Amino acid sequence: MLLNDRAAAYGDGLFETIAIRDGEPRFWPLHVARLQSGCLRLGIPCPSDEALRADLGSAIDGSTISVEYATAKLVVSAGNGPRGYRRDPAADAIVRVGIFPAAVLATTQYREGVATRLCATRLAAQPQLAGIKSLNRLEQVLARSEWSEPDIFEGLMLDTDKRLICGTMSNVFIATQSSLATPAITRCGVSGIMRRHVLRLLQDAGIDCVVRDIQVDELASADEVFLTNSQFGILPLRQCADLQWNVGAITQQAQKLLAANGVPECAA
Amino acid sequence: MLLNDRAAAYGDGLFETIAIRDGEPRFWPLHVARLQSGCLRLGIPCPSDEALRADLGSAIDGSTISVEYATAKLVVSAGNGPRGYRRDPAADAIVRVGIFPAAVLATTQYREGVATRLCATRLAAQPQLAGIKSLNRLEQVLARSEWSEPDIFEGLMLDTDKRLICGTMSNVFIATQSSLATPAITRCGVSGIMRRHVLRLLQDAGIDCVVRDIQVDELASADEVFLTNSQFGILPLRQCADLQWNVGAITQQAQKLLAANGVPECAA
Repeated sequence: MLLNDRAAAYGDGLFETIAIRDGEPRFWPLHVARLQSGCLRLGIPCPSDEALRADLGSAIDGSTISVEYATAKLVVSAGNGPRGYRRDPAADAIVRVGIFPAAVLATTQYREGVATRLCATRLAAQPQLAGIKSLNRLEQVLARSEWSEPDIFEGLMLDTDKRLICGTMSNVFIATQSSLATPAITRCGVSGIMRRHVLRLLQDAGIDCVVRDIQVDELASADEVFLTNSQFGILPLRQCADLQWNVGAITQQAQKLLAANGVPECAA
Repeated sequence: MLLNDRAAAYGDGLFETIAIRDGEPRFWPLHVARLQSGCLRLGIPCPSDEALRADLGSAIDGSTISVEYATAKLVVSAGNGPRGYRRDPAADAIVRVGIFPAAVLATTQYREGVATRLCATRLAAQPQLAGIKSLNRLEQVLARSEWSEPDIFEGLMLDTDKRLICGTMSNVFIATQSSLATPAITRCGVSGIMRRHVLRLLQDAGIDCVVRDIQVDELASADEVFLTNSQFGILPLRQCADLQWNVGAITQQAQKLLAANGVPECAA
């Protein structure tokens, strides 16, 4: 009964949104690592890597839509239990997998960037949930409901102390001539798979990127801003409200690195 | 498909836990008012009072357990939608109702009080979600998972600034010889049905109860502490960690008022 499923009752669970390319999950080890870390932090018994991969494989094999270029959603619910916040210590996690059509972005979005807005909905500081992709996502839902204009690709979100944290479904990087930085995800926000992959690529390429607190004012002094997400890779930001940026050398270099390391879309 | 249900995907919805007594929902108007207010704040199209009451009535009529003394759980999901945080503007809310056995408390719990602990899990300040009973309840789940001792009835929760806010599933009132107060539910916490009912009863009886910020230190100087909840009414608190309180005249008076106004259990 759905009323007993803790994901549906309390948002008690986690999820991953995984790019499927040529029938295979992209960056599977990164997704599994985040999921297992999230389960550990929430106290949810996490299925093994092999079991999760088998569930995903079955969904891919049984998909009624093409898995050449698709998006998988993998949800881990804390399981079934009696009414009340207390979990049944004997309950097993429940895994649900669905295969969805993937959004295909235009070349111009990769080359010329996308427009965003600054969301009024703020992210609350809750270190116990920061970084993980839990099923408690009302803040993102409220932020995303703030606009319906199709030309606004994403909304940037601040925490309650006006720090820039992320987009509703992406992470953000800001660059000046001399520095590259991305917000720390220690109080709120989701630590994205693509953010982690890009940070690693930059490091390996000898490009310094600092993970730190970023005040919203820094957007105005940034020379370049870009977004990361597991589905699209890197997209330059050309606008947020009345601020505008050019697509610059740092963003293009990061896209080039990414295109050569698992995300060919970025060479669009 | 469950993956498309926004309650299961993002905790995008609200719920009510309603005492069923002699086959009828107790304090139905208060539950409906909170649910409708929550839907309005979250932008979820709320079914009408009549439609919700009909769904509850069907569940009561079809219940396989006795509805003389039971608990109904009524969940409103924001509905089905495509993958992603953006809601389908055309989606209708989905209502789910279940009837569960109600906990029957011992007379000694009403007369001598219950023991609590102070939870390490803090409530994040998020005014946009404060007061409503949304399906984003991981903080309560984590707090409730902190203990398994059966003699600990409830856990008290603080916000990130060390203010006393509530229990995991109850509201809290503290009294000294000269004052009675309950925490403001403006930054976090759930504004309980029984809390509202008790506040009204106290007001009607000419007893001042102040709704204000309460620092955790005030627990140590309190003469009496009690909990409210839609199922049990009022329970005195006799202990929280190393603090102890007697069951005093204010708590007993509140229980007496409540017993005469809809919650006869409190006369136990």
